[in-house]
Amino acid sequence: MVIVQKFGGTSVADLDRIRHVTGRIAQTRAAGHDVVVVVSAMAGETNRLLALAHAAAREPDERESDALVATGEQVTAALTSLTLQDGGVPARSFLGHQVRIETDSAHGRARIVRVDVDRLRTALADGAVAVVAGFQGVDGQGNITTLGRGGSDTSAVALAAALQADVCEIYTDVDGVYTSDPRIVPQARKLDRVAYDEMLELASLGAKVLQIRSVEFAKRYRVPVHVRSSFNEVEGTWVVEEDPTMEQVTVAGVAHDRDQAKITIVRVPDRPGIAARVFGPIAGANIVVDMIIQNVGADGSTDLTFTVPRGDYDKARRLVEATARDIGAQGVTGQTDVAKVSIVGVGMRTHAGIAARMFEVLSAEGINIQMISTSEIKISVVIDEKYTELAVRTLHDAFVARAET
Amino acid sequence: MVIVQKFGGTSVADLDRIRHVTGRIAQTRAAGHDVVVVVSAMAGETNRLLALAHAAAREPDERESDALVATGEQVTAALTSLTLQDGGVPARSFLGHQVRIETDSAHGRARIVRVDVDRLRTALADGAVAVVAGFQGVDGQGNITTLGRGGSDTSAVALAAALQADVCEIYTDVDGVYTSDPRIVPQARKLDRVAYDEMLELASLGAKVLQIRSVEFAKRYRVPVHVRSSFNEVEGTWVVEEDPTMEQVTVAGVAHDRDQAKITIVRVPDRPGIAARVFGPIAGANIVVDMIIQNVGADGSTDLTFTVPRGDYDKARRLVEATARDIGAQGVTGQTDVAKVSIVGVGMRTHAGIAARMFEVLSAEGINIQMISTSEIKISVVIDEKYTELAVRTLHDAFVARAET
Repeated sequence: MVIVQKFGGTSVADLDRIRHVTGRIAQTRAAGHDVVVVVSAMAGETNRLLALAHAAAREPDERESDALVATGEQVTAALTSLTLQDGGVPARSFLGHQVRIETDSAHGRARIVRVDVDRLRTALADGAVAVVAGFQGVDGQGNITTLGRGGSDTSAVALAAALQADVCEIYTDVDGVYTSDPRIVPQARKLDRVAYDEMLELASLGAKVLQIRSVEFAKRYRVPVHVRSSFNEVEGTWVVEEDPTMEQVTVAGVAHDRDQAKITIVRVPDRPGIAARVFGPIAGANIVVDMIIQNVGADGSTDLTFTVPRGDYDKARRLVEATARDIGAQGVTGQTDVAKVSIVGVGMRTHAGIAARMFEVLSAEGINIQMISTSEIKISVVIDEKYTELAVRTLHDAFVARAET
Repeated sequence: MVIVQKFGGTSVADLDRIRHVTGRIAQTRAAGHDVVVVVSAMAGETNRLLALAHAAAREPDERESDALVATGEQVTAALTSLTLQDGGVPARSFLGHQVRIETDSAHGRARIVRVDVDRLRTALADGAVAVVAGFQGVDGQGNITTLGRGGSDTSAVALAAALQADVCEIYTDVDGVYTSDPRIVPQARKLDRVAYDEMLELASLGAKVLQIRSVEFAKRYRVPVHVRSSFNEVEGTWVVEEDPTMEQVTVAGVAHDRDQAKITIVRVPDRPGIAARVFGPIAGANIVVDMIIQNVGADGSTDLTFTVPRGDYDKARRLVEATARDIGAQGVTGQTDVAKVSIVGVGMRTHAGIAARMFEVLSAEGINIQMISTSEIKISVVIDEKYTELAVRTLHDAFVARAET
């Protein structure tokens, strides 16, 4: 088999852990598999390098920041390769431009456009383990790019896709994907399997186990992903294609996301083109708007409410206040202590009445729902942040723990 | 003018020093020049990374070590570029593979085979400062290579040659090239100018101001090199083509090198092919032999003595002992507390009797000369290490201080 193994920052935090990891790699290879390893920077290293960039420049240029932070993975790749060799395992390290992993030029959040694995195949054919620096690529002009937080997951899955690997193992510091955050819900349990679509929703909803783009890649190229702990041998969670048995479980998990803020434009005149006037400048500032709701009043005016990441709240609010004046709205209000809580499951497609039951359960606890957003396999609500834990526990009790019995 | 400015590790040791350096770069640019900057790793960083490599593997693979240590210059290049930008100076960083600086595949001591400066020219045409990571290149297969200790000097001069730069400024923590080591000879004075050939001898003799290969490059492509301090504005030493006035000074400087050890094979049978048998294995182990002397005795047997860098003594001695047994020599002796002291000057070509005077001067101080080696513009002697300072001072008094008057 061809196996891609990705090790995150805590798994390669120092030489002792790297040695532990290389033992695992050696085991896999000794079992007769071809192994491609993808490594992150040692824990803390990316932040240290970013702090250096911010000490050097008030607004660090993204091209230069990428060249700087990419050294983190380069160091780990070389050290992992050296440690493997020291243990008698042939190994070669590869950087983004050596593999080569070509991306667009969006520094700091680049997207992979092409992966060439010829050199990796040659290394495997030579009996070596190929150790690839994650998180980094190179654009068409040879500039070093990085893929954003969690980007090494995407490096690993993209390589697994290009290599048509049998599995992409994501080693991390948790045992797998849980039905909810175990720090909030003690009864949360590890999922044995989760469908790509479910994982996409969970990833986008703040269950920070996998970078969302890695899941998109896995889904598109049908790469089986196995999320597991690098600290034990326990089976983790398989992220795989949906199959009929999955639909028997209505709700796979309950996720929450505190990185939310809400902005309302009060009494927006209801004219065509207003939405573009409001959201154009926000998009232009690279702020991602999540939910949007609009209430049209009897007098033809509207309240327009939307959510943004909390860190972008001040900037978004300034932009919106300018727009509100221009379009003659009454004013702008906002709230930063909100959270999003969601239930996710492919079973929702075939089970009716889930939304109604969700609202009922929350209402019974006195939790006011401020905004609602739904997809085929997910229902999200925005609530006061202080109710986050209560909402998550209540929904887990009602939907997930129940599915067990 | 096109000016290449190279800053060594102590000049970019931390962000404060980098800021100081970028001030200097900005000044040069403000004076209307095109500036290409070459940076070393922050002081101590290369050693830290090498220590990591040695902690990861008992005998670190050189390809992986190169990938590891090359991050040092990558970090400085990005930080220098960011700091320039923060000061309002457009700048772009370039790594070895981006420039591109192509080398052979001799990891850890690679030699530059080709330099392509198109991307640097584009950056200059855009009005930007090009900041190049020194010390590193890439071989024909895209593997990262490094040029050995002091390799950033060679990066700088090679780029200056390719760009046909007007000057290559080497910024360091000393004011220039001295007639001798000021720690030993208080009267040592800075040379205003020194010929390439003199600098080649001085560099190879342990005056560690410039990597010797950078001087070879400078000589071959007639690049004027200006060695000066990054901590003040004083004119340093120009390394330039020889001109007739230089010959008026017999001895430009007195150098010494303690990194010496001596090995003697006693009573080597005087047969053809013996030298190859002795030195073949040593060359095979990448040990550089410096001086060799051979005394043929009346009985047709020979004592063969040669010097190697002190760090290679044990390895060389083991190899030589094996050879000595094979060829039927009587035995092997060795000494690690020797030093080489040399006088250098293009004027020696036209001044007779320098060697005789040198031996006389040393003998008058009771210093025994163990080995002698000469070139057109240099005379070196190997002596007991304990006499190093005395020999250097005596020779400086006799040849250099005298030339002043």
